[in-house]
Amino acid sequence: MLNEVDGEAGARVVEALADIAPDFATYLLEFPFGDIYARPGLDLRAREIATIAALSALGNAAPQLRVHIRAGLNVGISREEIIETIMQMAVYAGFPAALNALAVARDAFADDAP
Amino acid sequence: MLNEVDGEAGARVVEALADIAPDFATYLLEFPFGDIYARPGLDLRAREIATIAALSALGNAAPQLRVHIRAGLNVGISREEIIETIMQMAVYAGFPAALNALAVARDAFADDAP
Amino acid sequence: MLNEVDGEAGARVVEALADIAPDFATYLLEFPFGDIYARPGLDLRAREIATIAALSALGNAAPQLRVHIRAGLNVGISREEIIETIMQMAVYAGFPAALNALAVARDAFADDAP
Amino acid sequence: MLNEVDGEAGARVVEALADIAPDFATYLLEFPFGDIYARPGLDLRAREIATIAALSALGNAAPQLRVHIRAGLNVGISREEIIETIMQMAVYAGFPAALNALAVARDAFADDAP
Amino acid sequence: MLNEVDGEAGARVVEALADIAPDFATYLLEFPFGDIYARPGLDLRAREIATIAALSALGNAAPQLRVHIRAGLNVGISREEIIETIMQMAVYAGFPAALNALAVARDAFADDAP
Amino acid sequence: MLNEVDGEAGARVVEALADIAPDFATYLLEFPFGDIYARPGLDLRAREIATIAALSALGNAAPQLRVHIRAGLNVGISREEIIETIMQMAVYAGFPAALNALAVARDAFADDAP
Repeated sequence: MLNEVDGEAGARVVEALADIAPDFATYLLEFPFGDIYARPGLDLRAREIATIAALSALGNAAPQLRVHIRAGLNVGISREEIIETIMQMAVYAGFPAALNALAVARDAFADDAP
Repeated sequence: MLNEVDGEAGARVVEALADIAPDFATYLLEFPFGDIYARPGLDLRAREIATIAALSALGNAAPQLRVHIRAGLNVGISREEIIETIMQMAVYAGFPAALNALAVARDAFADDAP
Repeated sequence: MLNEVDGEAGARVVEALADIAPDFATYLLEFPFGDIYARPGLDLRAREIATIAALSALGNAAPQLRVHIRAGLNVGISREEIIETIMQMAVYAGFPAALNALAVARDAFADDAP
Repeated sequence: MLNEVDGEAGARVVEALADIAPDFATYLLEFPFGDIYARPGLDLRAREIATIAALSALGNAAPQLRVHIRAGLNVGISREEIIETIMQMAVYAGFPAALNALAVARDAFADDAP
Repeated sequence: MLNEVDGEAGARVVEALADIAPDFATYLLEFPFGDIYARPGLDLRAREIATIAALSALGNAAPQLRVHIRAGLNVGISREEIIETIMQMAVYAGFPAALNALAVARDAFADDAP
Repeated sequence: MLNEVDGEAGARVVEALADIAPDFATYLLEFPFGDIYARPGLDLRAREIATIAALSALGNAAPQLRVHIRAGLNVGISREEIIETIMQMAVYAGFPAALNALAVARDAFADDAP
C-alpha cells in the first residue's frame, strides 16, 4: 500500500528512520498504510485529497505534503485538482497556509518534468 | 452555491453575522462560495471531503465542521465516507483531533435521525 | 497594569488560580503585565489590537480573547475597530477562526449593554 | 495497558466509539496503547508527563487532557507535578494554553475529591 | 493597495503564482487587499500590527511575516514597535514563536540596511 | 540554570538577541529559567521530557526543539528516551509532527558524535 501510494518517496521515509527509530517505520507501515489507507470505505483518490487538504491546512508538514502531492498524482488526481484543493484551504486555514502549500506543489510537480 | 452546499445552516451563519459584521457575511458568500466552491476544477464531493479533513485536522472549528459534515451529506457523501475521512486524520493530526471530530460527526448525523 | 487593561476580568483570572496554581498568578502579573505591557515602545491601543489579532488567529483561547476584547474597549479601541481586526484574521487564519472570534466579540460586547 | 493507564475513562472512550466508528476503538487500543505505551524504553510516568505537556500545549484536546491528567494520577504522578508540567507550557505555547489546561486540571482533580 | 502596503514584495508574490495558480493571485488581490485592507474602519498601521502579531503567533508563515514586517515599515511603523509587537507574542504563543519571529524581523530589517 | 540546562546553545540564543531585542534575552532568562525551571516541584529530567514532547507536538519550533534535545542529554535523559518521547507524539499530534521531530533529533545527536 505504501508503495502504491507513495512510490519511492515512501521507501525513502522508511529508510531514513532505520538508524534512529526503526520501529517507527514499522508503525508507519502498519497504522496509516496497513490499517487506514487499506480500508474499503473510501477510495484512494478521496484519501489523498483529504491528506493534501489537511497537510496544507496544518502548515507545518511540508516534507509530508510533498510526498502526498506525489502520491496524489500516482493515484490519478490531476495537477489542477491538487491546486484546487490547496487553494480551497485559504478559506479554512488562511492565505499563508495556501501560499506555502502551493510552493510545495510547484516543487513536487517539478520532480517529474520531462 | 451556499444554499446547495450548506442548506439552512449556511443561511443561519449569514443571519448570525447581520448584527455584528454584516459585511463579513458578504465576503463569506463571495470568496469561499462565489469564488472557490464554484470553480469547475474540482467536484463538490471532493471539495467537501477536503474541508471535512482540514477542519478535523485543525481541531479548533467544531461549529464549521458540523456545517460541512451536513454539507457533505447534502452533496452525496455517505456517512461511512465521512467517518473514514475523519479517522484518517488521526494519522496526520493525532488521535485527539480525530476523536473530537468523530464526536462532532455523531451530533451532525443525529440532526436528521427520523 | 492588569487593572488598567483588564479591569475586573483580570482580577477574576488571578483569583481563579488561587487554589490550583497561585504562583502562576504571580508570573501572569510579572511577565505579561509587569514586563511586556508596561514597556514604553508600543502604546496600549496597539498592544491590545495585537493581542486580539493573535488570539483570534490561534483560535483556541476564547476565554482570553473575551478578556482582551473587554480590555480593548477599556483602552479606547472602538467596537468597529475590534470587528475589523477580527475580520482581517480570515485572511491569515481562515474564515472559521474569524467567525468564532466574532462570536466571542458578540458575547463580550453584550456584557456592557445598557 | 489502557486499563492501567486510563482506568474507567479509557473504557468510556472505547464505548463511545461503538456506534459511530468501532474500528477506530481497535486502532486506539492497538497503536497508542498496544504499540507505544507498552514499549520498554520510557517509563509510564515519563510517558504521561509527555502527554500532559503535549495536550496542554496543543490546546485543542481538553477531553483527552482530562483523561491523561487522571491517568497521570493513576501512575503515581502527584498533583503538584501535573501543575508544574502545565505551568511550564506557558513558556512554549503561551499563557492562554497554560491557563486553559490548569482549568482542565482543576476539573480532573475534583473527580476524586472525597 | 497591495502596492502601497507590500511594495515590490507583493508584486513578487503575484508573479510567483502566475505559473501554478494565477487565479489565486486574483483572489489575493481581491479579498485581502481589495476587500479587507481597503476598509475604512481601521488604519493601515493598526492593520499591519494585527497581521505581524497573528503571523508571529501562528508560527508557520515566515515568508508572509517577512513581507508584512516590510509592509509595516512602509506604512510608518518603527522597528522598535515591530519588535515590541513580536516580543508580546511570547505571552500568547510562547517564547519559541516570538524567538523565530524575531529572527524573521532581523532578516527583514537587513533588507534595507545602507 | 540556563547554563546547566542548555549549555552553550543557551548562551548563543541570548547573544543572538543582543542586537535586535536585548530585553527579550532578559525575559528569557528570568521567566522560563529563573522562574519555571528553577521551581522545586518537578525534576529537570521530567521538565525536559515535557518540553521535548510539547515542541515536537507543536511542530513549528525546530530550533528550540534542537536546543532542548541537547538539554535533555545534558540532564541525563538517554537518546532512547528522547526517541520514545518523540515517537509517542505521533499519537497526539500526528505522524508528520513525529517524523519531523525525529529528523531534528538525528541532527542534535550528530552534534556530539566522536
